Amino acid sequence: MNRIEETIGKIEPLDETAMESARARQDMLTKPLGSLGVLEDISVKIAGITGNYMPQINDKVIITMAGDHGIVDEGVSAYPKDVTLQMVYNFLSGGAGINVLARHAGGRVVVVDMGVAADIELAQEHAGGFIDKKIGYGTANMAKGAAMSYDDAKRTIEAGIDVLENEIARGVDIVGVGDMGIGNTAASSAIAAFITDKPVELVTGRGTGLDDAGLKIKVETIKNALEVNKPDRDDAIDILAKLGGFEIGGMAGVMLAAASHRIPVVVDGFISGAAALIAYEISPKLKDYLIASHLSVESGHQAILDYIGLEPLFNLNMRLGEGTGAALGISLVDASCNVLREMATFEEAGVSEKSSE
Amino acid sequence: MNRIEETIGKIEPLDETAMESARARQDMLTKPLGSLGVLEDISVKIAGITGNYMPQINDKVIITMAGDHGIVDEGVSAYPKDVTLQMVYNFLSGGAGINVLARHAGGRVVVVDMGVAADIELAQEHAGGFIDKKIGYGTANMAKGAAMSYDDAKRTIEAGIDVLENEIARGVDIVGVGDMGIGNTAASSAIAAFITDKPVELVTGRGTGLDDAGLKIKVETIKNALEVNKPDRDDAIDILAKLGGFEIGGMAGVMLAAASHRIPVVVDGFISGAAALIAYEISPKLKDYLIASHLSVESGHQAILDYIGLEPLFNLNMRLGEGTGAALGISLVDASCNVLREMATFEEAGVSEKSSE
Repeated sequence: MNRIEETIGKIEPLDETAMESARARQDMLTKPLGSLGVLEDISVKIAGITGNYMPQINDKVIITMAGDHGIVDEGVSAYPKDVTLQMVYNFLSGGAGINVLARHAGGRVVVVDMGVAADIELAQEHAGGFIDKKIGYGTANMAKGAAMSYDDAKRTIEAGIDVLENEIARGVDIVGVGDMGIGNTAASSAIAAFITDKPVELVTGRGTGLDDAGLKIKVETIKNALEVNKPDRDDAIDILAKLGGFEIGGMAGVMLAAASHRIPVVVDGFISGAAALIAYEISPKLKDYLIASHLSVESGHQAILDYIGLEPLFNLNMRLGEGTGAALGISLVDASCNVLREMATFEEAGVSEKSSE
Repeated sequence: MNRIEETIGKIEPLDETAMESARARQDMLTKPLGSLGVLEDISVKIAGITGNYMPQINDKVIITMAGDHGIVDEGVSAYPKDVTLQMVYNFLSGGAGINVLARHAGGRVVVVDMGVAADIELAQEHAGGFIDKKIGYGTANMAKGAAMSYDDAKRTIEAGIDVLENEIARGVDIVGVGDMGIGNTAASSAIAAFITDKPVELVTGRGTGLDDAGLKIKVETIKNALEVNKPDRDDAIDILAKLGGFEIGGMAGVMLAAASHRIPVVVDGFISGAAALIAYEISPKLKDYLIASHLSVESGHQAILDYIGLEPLFNLNMRLGEGTGAALGISLVDASCNVLREMATFEEAGVSEKSSE
């Protein structure tokens, strides 16, 4: 049995008993029934995921995976390819959006090179937060053929499984996944269009900031890539190989591995959504372990969430990626578990219950 | 000049120079232009409020004001009146929702007795987080006449000004306002209906959990109270006196005082929204200092936000009050300011800017 099959074989349904106990406790806490709304629901879901009716979120990890995309040669991005590498250094120095928001949420950032198109020269002090899983120096141009080989697609997922399982030794109570890769909205739109069966126009956005002419080129390029590649609809790894990015496969692997270890996964925006699509097609059992943080500005994200059946927690018109939305989402999940664990019950606090019941 | 006039006289427009500098800095940070959406906008607003283009939110304060309501005699609440007092003790012991969420946001809770219908017996260890500003033992029943005298209405606002100004000595970089008071959704619906000129049915909800019969009684009672009292549309203090609660006036005072000291105010849900309506009618200049945290489940909240012209940051189907939504909102504001202050610029990080510009 291969590594991927082994991982998905370990994904269990949610723990109904823990969920019932968590719901019963929420109903005993000193507040009108259901008055903390979605916060209550999240805490119950985390109970089901972890099997603990009073879960505690201590170790928060954002795994930000970087990779380059051959499709950039077609002029589908407003930023040059070099930015992927430059941003990896920015992550390692702590100056990027994800560093700020992970600190705010009390989490650590793990940066993974899944396939940046250059060697990363690592300063000693940054080694702790970096993992090298480079599959190649950027994907091939999907407008001209498969983005990567079928074997490499499997390797990206296995690499993601490795990354998550290595982190478990350092402690992981919740994981957020994020991306960096100039051109990766094009790959994600191709994946979203193909899997959700929506028109390319509907699921293709401006990415880092394309103008109308750029957007038109991007849509045509993606349509062309779908024509050229004709992925196998019944084989998510083939879809990933033909349209995907190394970091997208890596994120899919992280999600599957987290679910197999009963660790909640907070999905970021459009790119991690595309990774969730791939992972969900590999194993629909994953869905119960996913929490969608925000709704991205990037068109196509809604189609992904609808397809999997996820409701985002908030919409702040964000479209940065890197795991930034996931970091804010993790903070909310943390708050929801604190409510469940720390609030006093009516009995403990000596508060009268509803008079009509 | 009286205390209220003095306070509103000090409310200045936002600092446009600080806002321009903050926006310029946001545009230099290592992310696609505008890609952190609402987080960027909030940080710019905080720059305008504080006059600091790189604001830092250290001291976070939630002021939770409690008061009882004579209207409860009409059967408009699912919980008995005693719960107001019991919940004050719960706040002081740290077991309520607001305590948990304020801890999560890194803030302190200040509990104010604005008019609970019983004496509060304060344990030594809880004295630090409690302020006694009791105006009376609950309001009168607004179905039979004014909820309080005109002078008492002024006193509630002055008390709120006092409370905020006292807290400044301990440090206040941002303030959230919250409420506790069985029956106060009825008072808030009356205020919302009268000021926004919406039908009572539209702005009256189930509060802590009324059934259909209870909701019908509540709507009729509020209509009756509006008939009996006929507030002066041009005098917000008269509106407060006739329909309001002691805690609603206190919250209005906190908001006006915060604005006069250039401190951002995060509004919680429906009750603090009604307080914001009163404060806004007293001085529309307040608006620039308000940040709406969430959209409450309580019908009528949307009408309040529309009237003032505020957009809530999120909607998590919450309706607890106490300042719980405000605490989550404060956490987001904190994150937004961290982004503005802590992210590296393109130049600092050596990241290439957009190729097409």
